[in-house]
Amino acid sequence: MYCSGMSRRAGGRAARVAKRAAPPAFNPVVPGLPGGAYKPLTDSDMQSIYETALYLLEDLGMGLAITEFTDVVTAAGGWLDDDGRLHYPRGIVEAAVDTAAKEFIWHALDESKSIEVSANKVHFGTGGAAVSMLDHETNRFRHSTLQDLHDITRLYDNLEHIHFFMRPVVARELEDPYQLDINTAYALITGTTKPVGSAFFDADAVGDVVEMCDLILGGPGEFKKRPFMLANNTFVVPPLRFAEESVEVMVAQVRAGMPVCLLSAGQAGATSPAALAGSLAQALAECLAALTSINLIAPGHPCVMGLWPFVSDLRTGAMSGGSGEEAVMNAAAAQLANWLGLPSGVAAGMSDSKLPDMQAGHEKALTVALAAHSGANLIYESAGMLASILAFSLEAMVIDNDMLGSINRTIRGIEVTAETLSADVVKQVVEGAGHFLGSDQTLEMMQTEYIYPEIGDRLSPDDWVDAGALSARDRAHEYVKDVLNTPRAPHIDPSVDQAIRDRFPIQLAT
Amino acid sequence: MYCSGMSRRAGGRAARVAKRAAPPAFNPVVPGLPGGAYKPLTDSDMQSIYETALYLLEDLGMGLAITEFTDVVTAAGGWLDDDGRLHYPRGIVEAAVDTAAKEFIWHALDESKSIEVSANKVHFGTGGAAVSMLDHETNRFRHSTLQDLHDITRLYDNLEHIHFFMRPVVARELEDPYQLDINTAYALITGTTKPVGSAFFDADAVGDVVEMCDLILGGPGEFKKRPFMLANNTFVVPPLRFAEESVEVMVAQVRAGMPVCLLSAGQAGATSPAALAGSLAQALAECLAALTSINLIAPGHPCVMGLWPFVSDLRTGAMSGGSGEEAVMNAAAAQLANWLGLPSGVAAGMSDSKLPDMQAGHEKALTVALAAHSGANLIYESAGMLASILAFSLEAMVIDNDMLGSINRTIRGIEVTAETLSADVVKQVVEGAGHFLGSDQTLEMMQTEYIYPEIGDRLSPDDWVDAGALSARDRAHEYVKDVLNTPRAPHIDPSVDQAIRDRFPIQLAT
Repeated sequence: MYCSGMSRRAGGRAARVAKRAAPPAFNPVVPGLPGGAYKPLTDSDMQSIYETALYLLEDLGMGLAITEFTDVVTAAGGWLDDDGRLHYPRGIVEAAVDTAAKEFIWHALDESKSIEVSANKVHFGTGGAAVSMLDHETNRFRHSTLQDLHDITRLYDNLEHIHFFMRPVVARELEDPYQLDINTAYALITGTTKPVGSAFFDADAVGDVVEMCDLILGGPGEFKKRPFMLANNTFVVPPLRFAEESVEVMVAQVRAGMPVCLLSAGQAGATSPAALAGSLAQALAECLAALTSINLIAPGHPCVMGLWPFVSDLRTGAMSGGSGEEAVMNAAAAQLANWLGLPSGVAAGMSDSKLPDMQAGHEKALTVALAAHSGANLIYESAGMLASILAFSLEAMVIDNDMLGSINRTIRGIEVTAETLSADVVKQVVEGAGHFLGSDQTLEMMQTEYIYPEIGDRLSPDDWVDAGALSARDRAHEYVKDVLNTPRAPHIDPSVDQAIRDRFPIQLAT
Repeated sequence: MYCSGMSRRAGGRAARVAKRAAPPAFNPVVPGLPGGAYKPLTDSDMQSIYETALYLLEDLGMGLAITEFTDVVTAAGGWLDDDGRLHYPRGIVEAAVDTAAKEFIWHALDESKSIEVSANKVHFGTGGAAVSMLDHETNRFRHSTLQDLHDITRLYDNLEHIHFFMRPVVARELEDPYQLDINTAYALITGTTKPVGSAFFDADAVGDVVEMCDLILGGPGEFKKRPFMLANNTFVVPPLRFAEESVEVMVAQVRAGMPVCLLSAGQAGATSPAALAGSLAQALAECLAALTSINLIAPGHPCVMGLWPFVSDLRTGAMSGGSGEEAVMNAAAAQLANWLGLPSGVAAGMSDSKLPDMQAGHEKALTVALAAHSGANLIYESAGMLASILAFSLEAMVIDNDMLGSINRTIRGIEVTAETLSADVVKQVVEGAGHFLGSDQTLEMMQTEYIYPEIGDRLSPDDWVDAGALSARDRAHEYVKDVLNTPRAPHIDPSVDQAIRDRFPIQLAT
């Protein structure tokens, strides 16, 4: 039988990378398994939170709305008050919830890797805007770069249980917003054929990135037919105030046919109420304000309800991404969005730890597991993030991939059928061999019911010592080196790549 | 405001230990919060599994039943077949489920720390029979000793979120079963005033340990009134065969008034079906056989349904305690027992990792979180265990305590009331300060809604570097040294301790 510990010493890097990239004959877990077995809120809780959100939008409204929003909302029955706040009467919000896209495809360049954002289908991915990379050797942080982003993307391409990729780090050497947006998109698109997403700082870059995508897909208008990039937008400065520039960029994305995630990341106790229910109500109100405005401009445009209710450590005011409060809030946020019938995207996996250590592990698993079981369609931040999302670690990402596979196995759950109940198998064993090791059922289920970690250790203590007594982090580092040191054939046609380079200020070397 | 990172450098060890031992004014999480928001199985799934278990018990029965079981079961309508298997007709099993204790108090020497095992109240504790300790400095394993067990018990006494303590390691220097049982009990009882549990290898030791407990409580018969020790029994050699010696010991415990946990630890693919549903059905059948037999002997005796469906890595046949399959199976096991109205005790937190590293963290959190949210009354193995329960780590236990607090916070969930929905608070902030940092609600909720890790790091990256750039494991080691190097006033009256030492062969030094 195959033993991962032994295999690591056999064969070269290329063989290992090839083995890793090859899908198993049957995949016990796939993207989009249905969650929802965990319900942190009751229906009555959700109704109360929704009512509160509707009340806040009608009574207090949103500050700093852009003219385009004000125009469509007032035309639909809203009003601007003397303080310039835009009020959304409940009727137009409810109408937007009705009109809004209930599902959409987040395409991938490799269409077989596209994901369906709908119902309570669960997907794991990255997210955030970390500014630092953890250096494996020194345990210190350095500024993240465009090359880091490309490397992370390539790693993602190899990691089976990460289903979508929102750019998790900022290329800090690129200070010009347009340069940053264009190069970020290019680094993602050339690094993977799986779904990608970005965030934009320059509205002008949106159209140019779409043009880049059109070039890759074969011509103008192709991206709109098969949008394989989603855009995250932190469109709000909580409480209840639009972030004008982000909203402008978001509207450009909507016009370009790019699916958007409406991100409200209030921090409980700082920019949203310390009471968890209130923090959820405010985030829901904010996301509904954006959803309503967008649906008045472009009815049915694919929007993800990105309630990201963050938590403060109230002793210091600092963000705490790895806390239990965070875990239960984001799970509840997903449940709320799904209950409204809308695509849900929440944040989980944001450890407060600075290292890929045991604290990071338990904080990540708790937050991601609850979000997944609540049925979150898109679980952002679920791989690689450390330091309350200030930093990224390649090794953490590899370990997280194992964790995500394991969590996805629990989402798949337990199939109960006459066959799986196994009364006959038990009878045979009791009357025969006395154990199940060689039974047909066991051999059959080895590949269909069970998944196996990529770098997770399951050796005996003695074998583990013989294999070098390595930590998960050390084994992950070997994996990272293997992947990044192995040349990867480009999936973008060289002539197309040249056309992109001719047209745009691409900074990544060929 | 208070910052844990800074406080670590202020004050001496005794002050830190005292601070740690002191309960907060208000405890946002307590033992016994209600789980059940996660339902891995449907009602129909559970009915099918129960029916299969009833079928297995009636059709195949149990091998190697002791005479006492055979007597009561055949008297109640069961029968012994030609192969010596004892068959349990469904009627007597269903009657036992009716008769069985639905709840009981697991007492503590300090009565305020007793826990109520009932409904879907969730408690976290240790368990297992590890044979090794991980050495923090060398990353190697050594045999566990009686002193280790006592040290672990003392550490447990200090860790807020571990609610019960089943002896997790075996004192390997004690080869005589009676010596082992007596000294194990003494090490636990003198190490903590919180609930304790043990396992026995010698039926004669059971009565003597009860006598020891009676001495502590003030006289003969006192333990029966206030049993503060529970006994785990692996009463079965799966599939469907009693472990005769363990059953003899268990019956002695029942007669002595000691609550028992009926432990079935079949390993899917080896000693139970590889199909998860079948593994659950078999474990349920085995536990119901013991429950039925015990309830025929002592109706209503406190029994925990200890379905511990373990998982094999089917590539090697080795146990995998940290897998997703394990997580979902034990959560389902708890749901099943609770659905039958019976106390549930499952295993979670059993990492396959050999170190307190990121793999250990994510495996522990996933398994424990799902068990907890499914409403498991007693979550065994939830602290300190590594190497698929072959080894124990003091540092892992300390980190696990943080994890358990965090998970318990998610069990508490989100209270949705007019007050917590916070519409008025949001309105005040929008119309006033613009943030929630100084609001009355925030200050009030700091101690009532939020919990704070003991050694978990939430510093900024710079502050973390200034504080020594320590991993969770390093910080946990400091905590361990603090607790174990600080003398602890005995809670057993010296004259009682002397009486115990006069009566029993106690090996721990005074």
